[in-house]
Amino acid sequence: MSKKLPTRQEDYSLWYNEIVKRAGLAENSAVRGCMVIKPYGYAIWEKMQRQLDDMFKRTGHENAYFPIFIPKSLFEAEEKNAEGFAKECAVVTHYRLQTDPDRPGKLRVDPTAKLEEELIVRPTSEAIIWSTYKNWVQSYRDLPLLINQWANVVRWEMRTRLFLRTAEFLWQEGHTAHATAEEAVAETRQMLDVYAEFAEEHMALPVVKGVKTPNERFAGAEDTYCIEALMQDGKALQAGTSHFLGQNFAKAFDVQFANKEGVREYVWGTSWGVSTRLMGALVMAHSDDEGLVLPPKLAPIQVVIVPIYKTGELDALLERIKPIQMGLIARGISVKVDARDTERPGFKFAEWEMKGVPVRLAIGARDLDNGTVEVARRDTKAKMSLPLADIVASVDQLLTDIQHDMYEKAKQFRATHTTRVDSYDEFKRVLDNEAGFVLAHYDGTSETEERIKDETKATVRCLALNEPDEDGTCMVTGKPSTRRAYFARAY
Amino acid sequence: MSKKLPTRQEDYSLWYNEIVKRAGLAENSAVRGCMVIKPYGYAIWEKMQRQLDDMFKRTGHENAYFPIFIPKSLFEAEEKNAEGFAKECAVVTHYRLQTDPDRPGKLRVDPTAKLEEELIVRPTSEAIIWSTYKNWVQSYRDLPLLINQWANVVRWEMRTRLFLRTAEFLWQEGHTAHATAEEAVAETRQMLDVYAEFAEEHMALPVVKGVKTPNERFAGAEDTYCIEALMQDGKALQAGTSHFLGQNFAKAFDVQFANKEGVREYVWGTSWGVSTRLMGALVMAHSDDEGLVLPPKLAPIQVVIVPIYKTGELDALLERIKPIQMGLIARGISVKVDARDTERPGFKFAEWEMKGVPVRLAIGARDLDNGTVEVARRDTKAKMSLPLADIVASVDQLLTDIQHDMYEKAKQFRATHTTRVDSYDEFKRVLDNEAGFVLAHYDGTSETEERIKDETKATVRCLALNEPDEDGTCMVTGKPSTRRAYFARAY
Ligand SMILES: [Zn+2]
Ligand SMILES: [Zn+2]
Repeated sequence: MSKKLPTRQEDYSLWYNEIVKRAGLAENSAVRGCMVIKPYGYAIWEKMQRQLDDMFKRTGHENAYFPIFIPKSLFEAEEKNAEGFAKECAVVTHYRLQTDPDRPGKLRVDPTAKLEEELIVRPTSEAIIWSTYKNWVQSYRDLPLLINQWANVVRWEMRTRLFLRTAEFLWQEGHTAHATAEEAVAETRQMLDVYAEFAEEHMALPVVKGVKTPNERFAGAEDTYCIEALMQDGKALQAGTSHFLGQNFAKAFDVQFANKEGVREYVWGTSWGVSTRLMGALVMAHSDDEGLVLPPKLAPIQVVIVPIYKTGELDALLERIKPIQMGLIARGISVKVDARDTERPGFKFAEWEMKGVPVRLAIGARDLDNGTVEVARRDTKAKMSLPLADIVASVDQLLTDIQHDMYEKAKQFRATHTTRVDSYDEFKRVLDNEAGFVLAHYDGTSETEERIKDETKATVRCLALNEPDEDGTCMVTGKPSTRRAYFARAY
Repeated sequence: MSKKLPTRQEDYSLWYNEIVKRAGLAENSAVRGCMVIKPYGYAIWEKMQRQLDDMFKRTGHENAYFPIFIPKSLFEAEEKNAEGFAKECAVVTHYRLQTDPDRPGKLRVDPTAKLEEELIVRPTSEAIIWSTYKNWVQSYRDLPLLINQWANVVRWEMRTRLFLRTAEFLWQEGHTAHATAEEAVAETRQMLDVYAEFAEEHMALPVVKGVKTPNERFAGAEDTYCIEALMQDGKALQAGTSHFLGQNFAKAFDVQFANKEGVREYVWGTSWGVSTRLMGALVMAHSDDEGLVLPPKLAPIQVVIVPIYKTGELDALLERIKPIQMGLIARGISVKVDARDTERPGFKFAEWEMKGVPVRLAIGARDLDNGTVEVARRDTKAKMSLPLADIVASVDQLLTDIQHDMYEKAKQFRATHTTRVDSYDEFKRVLDNEAGFVLAHYDGTSETEERIKDETKATVRCLALNEPDEDGTCMVTGKPSTRRAYFARAY
């Protein structure tokens, strides 16, 4: 904790990496592109999982588990999906090792144990799941299938970043099957709303809900909906996607059902997912030059208590602290008392600031005698002296306030970093200066989108669902446009 | 549900497979040896996970996540461990697919995308985790490391069985690091106790705690502790293991710490795991010829309510059922009201029996008028008419009774299927007739153990921790023995 963090201003990218490491969230592993999620980081992910899982179950979904391997012949059945992921696939070709005759005590792949058909390590599970759904669906009475899976997936990436882009990551993937297109679209939109609610209410992260252009669509989907968030460097981050799959996978895997009239039809599908990428979004959206800043709802430790004492007085002080600690626990607040006798308070303050604990109580005997407690909030770094008498209720309220204020701050940031522009020059100028979301008219063609991307590195993040129609002309080609798109440089 | 199950008597193995499928627990997948865990099966696994996870956290452990891949050079570093798993390893050799020039629209492995070093899909994670611990441990102050991981692992198996032996399975693996051998042994034993407590109190499954012989030890361990349970066919099933690793992995990965005197020492390790195999044990230990029998603590649905009504009266009856349903829910009991108008009560009864729901309430208007409810318990199939007035408290008590009685029944079964024998002939006769655990003296050598296994298919399940010393002679060689071992044929 001794060395200062690089500031966001100095080197945003290094600042991010250092927080992830110093806060104990994750680190690179011995396997190229794969990360180790450390206990503190995993504890945050568990909080995310628990909340999301509850929300999925409340909307009628059940969890299941499908194999990590996909036989190549199944993988390639839905051609667009297969093509979209082909370049990122880890492939299992052998199933046995043997003693290496040339290197005593070492092993080599047994050349005789070659698989007849290669197995793809799942980059996403539509293929294996739809090949299973074929056997689960006969009649309209078997629909809808509302299933989610928590799993690891592998996408071979050349340039990786902790949490944001890793070869292996953890995620959930919902895969549903429906009797009608309307119902499948409604499911797609419902899960987008679930993701937006989770991001805003739990991550304190305001998001734009929208639909992707064909260029940015999930391979194999008819429509990809997404939530897009803004990071402090003005770059956008796609925080979750929900896909309307049409009948593409049903046709590829021949999943049909008999409708009420006994006529056989192809099933309609959706899939939707969020991943450990959300951890990256959480860090980038809220943290500051002292370290991580966590919203109370996702903080593994919500309150840290640091005793302030003279040599020999620690035990007596801890006795007096106990009722406060127990009162907070009884209220469902997670508390850590940092009773280490080997570190000074200033060191402890810095460490818990680095780890983003929302509220710190510094408690000394003299304060207690005076009936007060020194309280510091991590998000604003404000310090206040609060009455001991109702400290539990005050801290509880403070946690609510912090959750709220962090969201408002992020929303305010987004408001000041969302710009409407009407010319390509202005577009480029904003990207290079304020950055953030740029709302602009373009002619809606893939060609123009590609050209803008090549020339500015900005992509269409989405066509926002709540963006009103507005007549305009494409900033690049001058052709007519009926609605502004959200552009940004993105992670 | 129409076709009857094969009975345990007729074909135990088929009976097991059919319950797993018909109760909706799991099925085979398109990938050889890998299973699909279906929603109802996964819901039971989630209950197991939640309970175990709470127990791990109460004993001071944190969760983390390590990569699914292990570079071959790391994998082979601990030679015994590597040798032990070499024959079961799925190996990733390539990281990209490409369009197959010979098969339009199809893919093939890109021969130019060959990994420089092969990656092993983890069969267990000691290697990748200890290679990480090397960087986490410098001083005694960094110890102990108490970490658990929930993950999928792959062991290539030739003969697979749903839940009991599959190429991919889900599990948790604890990996801890300690400053002293004593502390590591205490941890190993503590986690064995946690497993035993979980098996007995939640799965209603009595277990023998013991230590494995060197022949049956985990590859790379100094000692393997286990819990062994008895199935209804008299075969034993290893339900969990806890390994004292000594300094084997610390030495293989050079994990050293500076002790309080500043002297560098190798760290002491443990690892411990239970897997989805527990699902198989749960099915085999309790179920009957009508289907699954679940202990209330692990049942996703603890009470099913089947309305008994005449055409047109369902809605009115459901209104009257609602207060009972709500009363049960308020008490933390999970309830399903089977209001399907398309199926008859008898069909519903059979279906929920197949799924092992512990308590069934059949509720009709006439019973309610009389102030009674017809209650059936799944374990004993006993039916009773209980007063409506305190039905919620009665059902709650009944669930407690069922949990208790299932454990007692399984314990009784084990008592009548545990036999002490003093000759090899008796040993063989018991194995072929009563089966179960056979306690016998043997000379403790690997040779005799091997011979017994070859001749009888029985293995030493463990040397039970609570088995008293007793002078005797080996039933095979006549050599002296100081303690009886637990033998059985096993899954
Ligand atoms: Zn700015
Ligand atoms: Zn018997």
